[in-house]
Amino acid sequence: MRHRDPVLMGPGPCNPYPEVMEAYARPVLGHLDPDFISLMDEVGERLRRVFQTTNQLTFAVSGTGSAGMEAAFVNFVGPGDTVVVGVNGVFGGRMCDVAARCGAEVIRVDAPWGTPIDPNDLLDAHPSPKLIAVVHAETSTGVRNDLATLGAKKGDALLLADCVTSLGGIDLRIDEWGVDIAYSGTQKCLGVPPGLAPLTVSDRALAHLRETPQSWYLDLNMIAKYVTGGDGARAYHHTAPISSLYGLHAGLGALLDEGLEASFVRHQAVGDALQAGLVERGFELFAAEGNRLPQLTSVWVPEERLPSGTTEADVRRSLLLDYGVEIGGGLGDLAGKGWRIGLMGHTARMRNVQLLLASLDDILV
Amino acid sequence: MRHRDPVLMGPGPCNPYPEVMEAYARPVLGHLDPDFISLMDEVGERLRRVFQTTNQLTFAVSGTGSAGMEAAFVNFVGPGDTVVVGVNGVFGGRMCDVAARCGAEVIRVDAPWGTPIDPNDLLDAHPSPKLIAVVHAETSTGVRNDLATLGAKKGDALLLADCVTSLGGIDLRIDEWGVDIAYSGTQKCLGVPPGLAPLTVSDRALAHLRETPQSWYLDLNMIAKYVTGGDGARAYHHTAPISSLYGLHAGLGALLDEGLEASFVRHQAVGDALQAGLVERGFELFAAEGNRLPQLTSVWVPEERLPSGTTEADVRRSLLLDYGVEIGGGLGDLAGKGWRIGLMGHTARMRNVQLLLASLDDILV
Repeated sequence: MRHRDPVLMGPGPCNPYPEVMEAYARPVLGHLDPDFISLMDEVGERLRRVFQTTNQLTFAVSGTGSAGMEAAFVNFVGPGDTVVVGVNGVFGGRMCDVAARCGAEVIRVDAPWGTPIDPNDLLDAHPSPKLIAVVHAETSTGVRNDLATLGAKKGDALLLADCVTSLGGIDLRIDEWGVDIAYSGTQKCLGVPPGLAPLTVSDRALAHLRETPQSWYLDLNMIAKYVTGGDGARAYHHTAPISSLYGLHAGLGALLDEGLEASFVRHQAVGDALQAGLVERGFELFAAEGNRLPQLTSVWVPEERLPSGTTEADVRRSLLLDYGVEIGGGLGDLAGKGWRIGLMGHTARMRNVQLLLASLDDILV
Repeated sequence: MRHRDPVLMGPGPCNPYPEVMEAYARPVLGHLDPDFISLMDEVGERLRRVFQTTNQLTFAVSGTGSAGMEAAFVNFVGPGDTVVVGVNGVFGGRMCDVAARCGAEVIRVDAPWGTPIDPNDLLDAHPSPKLIAVVHAETSTGVRNDLATLGAKKGDALLLADCVTSLGGIDLRIDEWGVDIAYSGTQKCLGVPPGLAPLTVSDRALAHLRETPQSWYLDLNMIAKYVTGGDGARAYHHTAPISSLYGLHAGLGALLDEGLEASFVRHQAVGDALQAGLVERGFELFAAEGNRLPQLTSVWVPEERLPSGTTEADVRRSLLLDYGVEIGGGLGDLAGKGWRIGLMGHTARMRNVQLLLASLDDILV
């Protein structure tokens, strides 16, 4: 079978930076090789810069973004703990499920999909929760939630943030905003294939680290002895995914060479251009103005513009197979009626906006 | 920093097949792209051939071998379930830890490190356990445990096997031997970088699948809807690690092109040659005769052959940095006194045996 190479404008994965693909080709080293340990340390340093944190325990979990979510909960939440979770999309709902499986009392605070959650609704939901959790950038709706207000007013609670779709694409200040636990994924604005989940944990949160989390694989007590060493010795926990870490190292390098701020500006510029182009073509944006993500655009598809007898899914299929452009279907109310279009990492380039809009002009009536 | 490319003769990772590194360079596809779904289906077919099973639920868990271990337990074991675990090395002990975190009553059956576990000791440990678990090839000692007898006599119990170091290197017959749940890792005899955990589950085990496992990330109820589809539709669970799956697909292709039986013969031939060469040089083999793994050799290092003032760790460091050969240190009784030498996957070649023995002749006195 020939290799297709679609432009990945779905909700993730994006196209990886060329430097990342190059890094995959590096010779595999052992997980205790001194050069690999150095590389892992550099990954930690680079992640700290991208997360804008000084948290020592900052590393890539050996699993996808969802493994990051699970690591964020199982290490800090146990039976009987009260957890307030904001839900305005799929991933907030998933956090409720994960927290409940840890035995937590979950207080779910809903906001309509497409709108941000009012931080005060989360803060008022319980007088003294163990933890407040919210998704920074909802991949299912294209909405940004406010972390800074939560961090400023959280009191004794820990603040946990899903930053899968935000990290590297929009401003995210772990320390300044008072986020205690945050995780991300590599396949979004970091421009790396899926497979790893960057995670950062504040010292404040570490004081609440469970002694024996229900997950052995994600147990931070043990993982920390490998990734940060502590007394200098590195205790083996599980075999690190070497080649994927080479890829992440290179992707973070590409991002930091560009500069965080420059990356945010680039993501904003292409997102603005796409959203303007879609509105011009009769699409209605789904996410509330003022909280729209540039890197993930959700839209209602104008039915009258679909070629006769076709559905939005037919158009997406044609975009993929005839035009070489992948976009994502809608979720929730948007299912069958809307799209989610990603402009993340290496995909966040004006030429991709132009390609998609030109392809739509070709297909739509 | 220049790239070093050591020959990886530790307990894993091994050197990947060239075809695998080539596969990493393939363009990234979306996790719902039809071509990627086809590739994932092919990975399942290839894994079934390598596991020697017809189990439909056979796929690669998105994590390392230890994630496979956790997936194998959390989906089938819950509070109060009785689990018999054989322990004759590190990984048997790890299974006890994982099972206990699921709330299981763990009955631990020990055998001395370096010797196999008597299957009857496991069968006699409890009259009606929910599950019996054992490591097929103990990476910490180089010993093979007997699965066939356990499978034949297990009765109503489920048989769970850790096949991280065995899969692809020595005979492993999931269906014929009656193994219900088995997992492996990519970085051993499959000749692929670390990062994925092949898993296979019998229909008999699926009847015991927990409705809500404590892990969301490893919940087989949900993962099965993505990897096997069932009614044809693929429900998204988490974003698959695309590039790693390309690598596994290629590694399994290399193995099956060679032929399973031919791979076993190759692993046996190089293991025999290495073990004979080490004995000739005054090393004493640690694993009991008759149950020695060819792909993982554990030896006592003859102290009198170490250069004056050096330790076994100094020799390993010199092998790595001066000769470009990585081997592993000992664990348990072997710590500081012995080595573990892997010949797995692409590393299992006679030229690597010759290189290591010649390097040792150069270093030792």
